[in-house]
Amino acid sequence: MHTTTKTENITIVLNNPKYPGNIGSAARCAKNMGIEGLFVVGHEYPDMEKMKQMATHVASDIVENIKYFDRLGEALSGFNYIVGTTSRLGSARGPVVQPGEMARQIADISQNNKVAILFGPEDAGLANDELKYCHLLVAIPTSNELKSINLSHAVMILCYEIFTARTPSSERFTPKLATSFELEGMYGHLKEMLVKIDFINLEKPDYWMMNIRRFLSRTKLFSKEAQIIRGICRNAERCIGNKKA
Amino acid sequence: MHTTTKTENITIVLNNPKYPGNIGSAARCAKNMGIEGLFVVGHEYPDMEKMKQMATHVASDIVENIKYFDRLGEALSGFNYIVGTTSRLGSARGPVVQPGEMARQIADISQNNKVAILFGPEDAGLANDELKYCHLLVAIPTSNELKSINLSHAVMILCYEIFTARTPSSERFTPKLATSFELEGMYGHLKEMLVKIDFINLEKPDYWMMNIRRFLSRTKLFSKEAQIIRGICRNAERCIGNKKA
Repeated sequence: MHTTTKTENITIVLNNPKYPGNIGSAARCAKNMGIEGLFVVGHEYPDMEKMKQMATHVASDIVENIKYFDRLGEALSGFNYIVGTTSRLGSARGPVVQPGEMARQIADISQNNKVAILFGPEDAGLANDELKYCHLLVAIPTSNELKSINLSHAVMILCYEIFTARTPSSERFTPKLATSFELEGMYGHLKEMLVKIDFINLEKPDYWMMNIRRFLSRTKLFSKEAQIIRGICRNAERCIGNKKA
Repeated sequence: MHTTTKTENITIVLNNPKYPGNIGSAARCAKNMGIEGLFVVGHEYPDMEKMKQMATHVASDIVENIKYFDRLGEALSGFNYIVGTTSRLGSARGPVVQPGEMARQIADISQNNKVAILFGPEDAGLANDELKYCHLLVAIPTSNELKSINLSHAVMILCYEIFTARTPSSERFTPKLATSFELEGMYGHLKEMLVKIDFINLEKPDYWMMNIRRFLSRTKLFSKEAQIIRGICRNAERCIGNKKA
């Protein structure tokens, strides 16, 4: 027996898209593949007419229901699992999987968790500082001749893989994970504590945090575990406070 | 050991596309996935500027090298294997496979054969009379909410599957098959003969031919075999001629 992805738990998140036509086109692709959630992060509202033109009337409901955010962290705060898309590979970015492998993992995780599929702007893609939110990175394989894929076509490939993925039915699926909001609170706390105990350098804290984020995000933490880590931080801070006092 | 698709043997054939932007966008998708061949069938030349705008400068060579044809049969005549795309399923259309299965078959066949991936116009898709050229039909799975996929996004999904497909290395791949030109000559000859022997009704010859085409195209005929069938037709006609004379 196989189980399919819960597409109602999947949301496409476009970070700073430049062209409203691409947003509309992405809306149509999502709807083709049974995905209804679309978030847009940016500093101004995109042109509604241009979006609807590319979405066609059948996907205009997706466009009308887009949720808009100023900041990426805010857009992602309610998700339990975040997949980042990248075309640049490199050890600095950690392990990157192919779309089919990503989709098989999501088929399981989506049963009990809200999943965001995050895309960067057309020209530059996601910056390292934006990829830090992600539990998993995915890259679409391309020819060396032309690596740059149009945004809406990248959305289509990932939505298609998610829609068609099958996961072998197991007795239990991945239970509900901590939200991005809880994790960011935990990472903030952890960073403060690690600075206080002189484990990480005040000048380059984010460099060290990136390495810690990498293995903790692979671990798929639950809310309770994020609280445990914050509890450790609190106790450590209290001890240092007592000692230094 | 696995072998990858010979993308230099793959050509995207767009039958009567309505929007030049979609042609340009399809060119970019093909190039993303290492496919360089693009044929366009239609009655007028599409607007070059609009095509190039969507192709971006990196895929403008594909647009410049498009081959144009007036008739579909002419465009397909040099191919050994033709895959038709359809969104409509139905027993009248014969067996239809999913993109992944199509791509696995093409990975083998493309080693020694010229393969066309045929797409119909944006609104209507391919008609039955156009699907008759095809050895294999493929349909992209979609949500029931919105079945109609934008032409260039359909091109992207199939090119992506073709580019990423792997076929287990066998000692011999599918050898060179008869071309569409040879097959159409054979089918024409077969039809004449079948009418002469009163096997098929002069009023609805294409209905019966469609059923015969269906199993012969699954058989993957070689040139020599197409000649054998024509030889049988010739001999049959000679006998009837003698008898009727």
